[in-house]
Amino acid sequence: MKKLWKNCHIATMQNGQYSSIENAAIVTDSEIIHWVGSQQDIPSDDYVEIVDLGGAWVTPGFIDCHTHSVFGGNRSVEFEKRLQGVSYAEIAASGGGIASTVRATREASEEQLLASALKRIRCLLQDGVTTIEIKSGYGLDYTNERKMLRVIRQIADTLPMTVKSTCLAAHALPPEYKDQSDAYIEHICTEMLPKLHQEDLVDAVDAFCEHLAFSPAQVERVFQTAQALHLPVKLHAEQLSSLGGSSLAARYHALSADHLEYMTEDDVKAMAAAGTVAVLLPGAFYLLRETQFPPLDLLHQHGVRIALSTDLNPGTSPTLSLRLMLNMGSTLFRLTPEQALAGVTLHAAYALGLQNTHGSLEQGKVADFIAWDIEHPSEVVYWLGGDLSKRIVRHGNEISV
Amino acid sequence: MKKLWKNCHIATMQNGQYSSIENAAIVTDSEIIHWVGSQQDIPSDDYVEIVDLGGAWVTPGFIDCHTHSVFGGNRSVEFEKRLQGVSYAEIAASGGGIASTVRATREASEEQLLASALKRIRCLLQDGVTTIEIKSGYGLDYTNERKMLRVIRQIADTLPMTVKSTCLAAHALPPEYKDQSDAYIEHICTEMLPKLHQEDLVDAVDAFCEHLAFSPAQVERVFQTAQALHLPVKLHAEQLSSLGGSSLAARYHALSADHLEYMTEDDVKAMAAAGTVAVLLPGAFYLLRETQFPPLDLLHQHGVRIALSTDLNPGTSPTLSLRLMLNMGSTLFRLTPEQALAGVTLHAAYALGLQNTHGSLEQGKVADFIAWDIEHPSEVVYWLGGDLSKRIVRHGNEISV
Ligand SMILES: [Zn+2]
Ligand SMILES: [Zn+2]
Repeated sequence: MKKLWKNCHIATMQNGQYSSIENAAIVTDSEIIHWVGSQQDIPSDDYVEIVDLGGAWVTPGFIDCHTHSVFGGNRSVEFEKRLQGVSYAEIAASGGGIASTVRATREASEEQLLASALKRIRCLLQDGVTTIEIKSGYGLDYTNERKMLRVIRQIADTLPMTVKSTCLAAHALPPEYKDQSDAYIEHICTEMLPKLHQEDLVDAVDAFCEHLAFSPAQVERVFQTAQALHLPVKLHAEQLSSLGGSSLAARYHALSADHLEYMTEDDVKAMAAAGTVAVLLPGAFYLLRETQFPPLDLLHQHGVRIALSTDLNPGTSPTLSLRLMLNMGSTLFRLTPEQALAGVTLHAAYALGLQNTHGSLEQGKVADFIAWDIEHPSEVVYWLGGDLSKRIVRHGNEISV
Repeated sequence: MKKLWKNCHIATMQNGQYSSIENAAIVTDSEIIHWVGSQQDIPSDDYVEIVDLGGAWVTPGFIDCHTHSVFGGNRSVEFEKRLQGVSYAEIAASGGGIASTVRATREASEEQLLASALKRIRCLLQDGVTTIEIKSGYGLDYTNERKMLRVIRQIADTLPMTVKSTCLAAHALPPEYKDQSDAYIEHICTEMLPKLHQEDLVDAVDAFCEHLAFSPAQVERVFQTAQALHLPVKLHAEQLSSLGGSSLAARYHALSADHLEYMTEDDVKAMAAAGTVAVLLPGAFYLLRETQFPPLDLLHQHGVRIALSTDLNPGTSPTLSLRLMLNMGSTLFRLTPEQALAGVTLHAAYALGLQNTHGSLEQGKVADFIAWDIEHPSEVVYWLGGDLSKRIVRHGNEISV
């Protein structure tokens, strides 16, 4: 059941970074890549289908490795109020901010959460995203975290995408545990995580390490629990202040530490040694009008893998395009187009522990790719917004979006 | 031949600014709006078609009032080189920058220019743009400016959009006139503009007033010629330095002055008095990582109408989404969602002299509108990137994009 996809150029991402083959072709065998190479070396075979890609540039399917794309309601009215001059304090005092999303998420049924998430995730899919990570973290109790995680599993059954679920119960303090953050962490570690894991709803564990959320010691307690359950960890770290969360993440061999605006050189070295991916979220950076940049030079210098993601969430990053994050990664963080492309393919695969099966186009990996109607691969990064003409292939089959 | 579009909410933009009607309906009579009002007041009539908009929020069709969307080639490789550390000077020395676009545009046939422009403009149409302004300015001689303007006219014949053409022969100095900018301006005024106008290829006249382009005195010579030909004018002004171009534009009752980062309060007052629209281009601002903001407070204070546009061009703003410019207008320039929406509808109509027929939903105007699958109008601005679900109606007919 082999298919030949011919007449293209390929940004393969082989060898651990951007790399390419011009005048190339791909052979897929059901959902797996059987062969990638030069047009002139196409192996003879009985192909069940031959697809002419018309000179397109092919990249691996995009991987959005950090999203909060399941949530109730949205915060567009809060966004508007902020622009009308209402302060964060006033919004929080009137029940706004993350508390309003927790409320709306708790009130929503699984069906409602699924329906609203599908609308958003279809935008990402249309943009070329074939693998997505989705976090819980707006339920903040067993019942509602479970509900979110079940919806995340249903998304995998509904859309032609690979979906990884991350339990982010340690996202914020629920109202029931006001002023008792240690008790909430204890509840997560002794009750929620073990039960949710037992129901096979959790692929990884995340936490939010920040003054306004949880301390490094509390995060470490969560990481220890995850470790005992043999679940990989990741961390929201150093977004607003420097607490050493990224070094902590590295100590626990986290798949990734994310945000990282305030990380130090020691943090960078620790992540480099541990192979922990730096996930940068330029949409949140842009929308919050941050001025503190993640330490890009240090990350490059120490060879830390850099991924880019939408951080799709209703508060700080209602971002529906991963390709736009490529442009923002280049414009704001000065990544070259090649680095930016690696950030939503191979390096994002590392951030999900999927580097052996996803993120590059080479023999034995899954046949997830995008054929772009462009003349140079940098155009994927260069064009700002808009739905670039493309064909999307997932598991060896072209999908219509 | 009346159609009823019912069960919606409408951001009408009546009364010169953002305004809305909830639980509303629209009656169209072929391409014109016959009635807009409350659902309970729908006039009885023999409707040939009744469309249930399912509770959508309806805005006027978007108007992109400043684009350079016809050009040969693109500058993605230059974009990549810049990110790899090559300086502007080196790029210019190797024939890059606007010179490379002029070369590629001169080399392209009308058919080639049309085909590449259509790809880009289809992205805008899919985003909800039903009226677009397109400038010449990469031909820089009679033959090639004419070619561009003819392509602009052909776009109007090809896509379901209203297209306004602007002659921007005074965009840059062509190589044939090196060190002879006065002579080139004279050529524009005595040869190019009169002939192009006679062929009915020009709806308005624009120029680039900047140290690296043309002086206020040279621009004034162009404006005088336009005035004699009864053509309205607009101006690229105050983008990189303060030359008083916007005051000059106001003196000639320009439809708009565009960019405006370095304008003074006197410029603002002059524009307010003349009714000249301030067209802000946040995509170029973002991509150039500008730090000098247009004087938003002064513009608001003096009541200057503010429009937003993509500035779609291959060098400083390869922007394919006008909705993204709404988000950037709010995020970067702190426009409220209501101000941002006015900036791509009613105020953009003023910037094209179309305020009597376009830009708001009221009786007698053309029936161009977008029905968005959202629950609050601010969502149009709030969601960053992505192709929001919508239905687009142009001249009373739903179009498929
Ligand atoms: Zn996050
Ligand atoms: Zn321009």
